Amino acid sequence: MAMDVALRLEVEDLHAEYCAALDEGRYEDWAALFTEDCLYRIVPRDNHERGLPLAIMHCESRGMLLDRIVAIRETSYYAPRTLRHMVSGIRVAAEADGALRGQANYLVLQTLPEQPTTLFNAGRYLDTMVREAGRLRLKERLCIFDSIVVPNSLIVPI
Amino acid sequence: MAMDVALRLEVEDLHAEYCAALDEGRYEDWAALFTEDCLYRIVPRDNHERGLPLAIMHCESRGMLLDRIVAIRETSYYAPRTLRHMVSGIRVAAEADGALRGQANYLVLQTLPEQPTTLFNAGRYLDTMVREAGRLRLKERLCIFDSIVVPNSLIVPI
Amino acid sequence: MAMDVALRLEVEDLHAEYCAALDEGRYEDWAALFTEDCLYRIVPRDNHERGLPLAIMHCESRGMLLDRIVAIRETSYYAPRTLRHMVSGIRVAAEADGALRGQANYLVLQTLPEQPTTLFNAGRYLDTMVREAGRLRLKERLCIFDSIVVPNSLIVPI
Repeated sequence: MAMDVALRLEVEDLHAEYCAALDEGRYEDWAALFTEDCLYRIVPRDNHERGLPLAIMHCESRGMLLDRIVAIRETSYYAPRTLRHMVSGIRVAAEADGALRGQANYLVLQTLPEQPTTLFNAGRYLDTMVREAGRLRLKERLCIFDSIVVPNSLIVPI
Repeated sequence: MAMDVALRLEVEDLHAEYCAALDEGRYEDWAALFTEDCLYRIVPRDNHERGLPLAIMHCESRGMLLDRIVAIRETSYYAPRTLRHMVSGIRVAAEADGALRGQANYLVLQTLPEQPTTLFNAGRYLDTMVREAGRLRLKERLCIFDSIVVPNSLIVPI
Repeated sequence: MAMDVALRLEVEDLHAEYCAALDEGRYEDWAALFTEDCLYRIVPRDNHERGLPLAIMHCESRGMLLDRIVAIRETSYYAPRTLRHMVSGIRVAAEADGALRGQANYLVLQTLPEQPTTLFNAGRYLDTMVREAGRLRLKERLCIFDSIVVPNSLIVPI
């Protein structure tokens, strides 16, 4: 996996900015990390492995990501909470067409008001990244999560 | 975020040494990672965001960190336990004055004797780092934690 | 800790491939990350610190790792589950004999069918790495785990 060092660090930065944007509720900054024609999906592991189409969240463009953000902001019954993303095992490989394929493990922690911090969701990111206007962006991110027990609060991206 | 590669790795090393020193109970090594005139605070997220002054721990110099260490060592009712730090999303940016501003997400796990490992504390580090005698040191570290439910065992630094 | 940047990234890659191989059940790929004469041990922290010989798992060669894999595959009462490795605080230092000594914190999450994700095991990796046929390999990995409460499902490597 011969890979330019600067490019490696750029991928790590993309992950870090992604997590920070979500954790801080900067959803527009989060959406800006995707390409206009992106694919973003949150899928249970079993479904992914069996090739089943079901997804908890499915967005086929940055516009749909932005629609989603509006929906989150307008959902009044969504109790305030803090999410905290941890990412590990970042891997990346260049492909023949110039795109980058990447993956990483993630763990999202959740803290509800007056409650202790708990495990919220864990799984794997499967990414395709491209360079656009000089910056790396996500052309595709699949969030393949491990537990079929989906918290009913999974209305935000992970 | 154009950043010298060597400097980036140095910041990662600082995080790794910080965590290892705390996890191994090498508190003097931990204190040595700060500047003499450092600021170290552990603050609940709500208080930080509202600008409230309350802190669970507040040290305004390395001397105060060392005092704290003495207090920890002399606290006989503090049951032995293992803490384990996980850090993710390390970010760093150089500022005009030559200092480095950084942040990272953290998760601390706790294991009490004969007990399973549990989540102890999670949040975000907000740092200012400077170079002193050739080594990067923490001039300021704010530990902004997510859950207001503070374990009563939070008498050690995180 | 003056360390070649490329070598640092290579160590990170080794950790990432190790975790991905285990998480995806690619046990032969996992075993291929070790040298032929490797030592692999999973040891409770107390035993490690007191120098006691007890280990939950003890393999003295890659052949023993492969035997272990056969045993895992033939264990019919082992319920399917998903493991998810998170690694943090990767450190590495070159030694006089050309070997690399490394350590890192780890957290393994477990998800049983129809169950939420839970903490499975956390601790520290203590490694010796050598270069073999151009690739970094583990000559020794000690998994020093924090909680004496060992899940009865700890029959797979961590």
